[in-house]
Amino acid sequence: MAKVAAKKNPKAKVYFTVKDSVKVVQNRSGSKANKRVKFLVDTLVKHMHAFVKEARPTMDEWMYGINYLTRTGRLSTDWRQEFILLSDVLGISMLVETLNHDKISGETESTVLGPFYIANAPQYPNGVNICLDGKGEPVYVHGKVTNSKGKIIKGAKLDVWQANEDGFYDVQQKGIQPDMNLRGVFTSDEKGRYSFRSAYPRYYPIPYDGSVGDMLKALDRNPNRPAHLHFMVSALGYEKLVTHIFTPDCPWLKDDAVFGVKESLIADFKLIDDPRRAADLGMPNPFREVEWNVVLSKA
Amino acid sequence: MAKVAAKKNPKAKVYFTVKDSVKVVQNRSGSKANKRVKFLVDTLVKHMHAFVKEARPTMDEWMYGINYLTRTGRLSTDWRQEFILLSDVLGISMLVETLNHDKISGETESTVLGPFYIANAPQYPNGVNICLDGKGEPVYVHGKVTNSKGKIIKGAKLDVWQANEDGFYDVQQKGIQPDMNLRGVFTSDEKGRYSFRSAYPRYYPIPYDGSVGDMLKALDRNPNRPAHLHFMVSALGYEKLVTHIFTPDCPWLKDDAVFGVKESLIADFKLIDDPRRAADLGMPNPFREVEWNVVLSKA
Repeated sequence: MAKVAAKKNPKAKVYFTVKDSVKVVQNRSGSKANKRVKFLVDTLVKHMHAFVKEARPTMDEWMYGINYLTRTGRLSTDWRQEFILLSDVLGISMLVETLNHDKISGETESTVLGPFYIANAPQYPNGVNICLDGKGEPVYVHGKVTNSKGKIIKGAKLDVWQANEDGFYDVQQKGIQPDMNLRGVFTSDEKGRYSFRSAYPRYYPIPYDGSVGDMLKALDRNPNRPAHLHFMVSALGYEKLVTHIFTPDCPWLKDDAVFGVKESLIADFKLIDDPRRAADLGMPNPFREVEWNVVLSKA
Repeated sequence: MAKVAAKKNPKAKVYFTVKDSVKVVQNRSGSKANKRVKFLVDTLVKHMHAFVKEARPTMDEWMYGINYLTRTGRLSTDWRQEFILLSDVLGISMLVETLNHDKISGETESTVLGPFYIANAPQYPNGVNICLDGKGEPVYVHGKVTNSKGKIIKGAKLDVWQANEDGFYDVQQKGIQPDMNLRGVFTSDEKGRYSFRSAYPRYYPIPYDGSVGDMLKALDRNPNRPAHLHFMVSALGYEKLVTHIFTPDCPWLKDDAVFGVKESLIADFKLIDDPRRAADLGMPNPFREVEWNVVLSKA
């Protein structure tokens, strides 16, 4: 690392000026720089300098920003990731997610993973009820897994999770909700079909008692996420799909605090009043039913 | 805060798309948003989305960024501010500083404050030696304080501080260096003149055992700051000036890790071999001498 910059780029501008600020910073990298890191940092510098030149923060605002980022880092623990939340509410998470999973042939669209996934949810046979606290409107979820040409995919793993009727995930209420409440892994059968029983999802606020909450309040922004059910679907030879389905009647559907809603992910949760069908499915009457078919992309 | 977005902007795009990502995020603010916060965040969103669209980070790179920022926040303590350091090495601190202190009439240029200023340095009469550890080449610093029309400013406070011969500030070496080594506050006299004795400054590396150091290593960048002496000059009716003067022969002058060098701040530290002048000034012979005149802007 120890070498003199003047020898690297004898003609480069070396002293800082507002006009040449981006080039001056970018020119500092040496010949042994990691090319990908250099590309990412150089691109960040270009856009961050453009931000500063347009926004012209005062010295006090710059210092507020330094302290804001520091606080955001300190709020992050094993149970809470405030920087992910910040990325989420600025639309950055959705942008990165969508650019990395561009769907062009009718495959199911992706959305944000969120902070409440856990890797070791129980595996269940199709049809099992994952609602262990007995709260909420009963819902029957079913569908099939195919590729974009309609070919059935059997043996796909469907990892599902959601908040309960009170708007909390089990991991947010250890000792209050049963462990593994509203989580489970299902497997598509020989016809590509899966099914399970659950509770109609409810909306809930993201944690807003920290730095991200302060920003939402200053911007007069809603902290709620519209009601949804998470899916992570994987099958050999296919790209892993991370997505949600949303209920169509949630008042926050058009104001998701983290921008996770895509129109194709709003599902039709039908209200069924049919004692015979309820008995066939082992549901109380009336109940909700949603058919949700998953289309995977080739790996 | 609780209201439905669809009613705020009935015609606005509400669901996230890559094409409309910036507008979708900006449109979420409510009517009670703080206007300045909204302007700053909206401008940040515009430039950060442009960064993501150009750089197209992978999901793993995004997660690396989340963890990098979290680590940077956790490294920050009362004694170390890693986010300021990050802002410094990306040229952001110098950009904010320079935009906030635009000099147009020959006033002395500003540069970064740095993390080693302390507010309660001792006040001394002119001519005092602030080098309490006796290390380094002796230097005599003097000059006058005026406005841009050459009018003398008397009673200006000149707060000065620097690293010692080993490249550390006193606050970095509590118990090793004398307290308040190489710090002092001087006052311009009736002719606007100030003077003090010190040690010829040496270059030193910024702390690079943390997240900022990892980035400098990946970019094959130098962590050193060229040798300098800090000044903070204040006088009633004038804008406070925060600046450095740099030695002209430092090998890192063209490769300052934090971009603090401006050409106008490189001073002429003359090597003097003149026993009579040395005796007049109370200096050993030979010694260094620098005349540095300060021109303040009206408040």
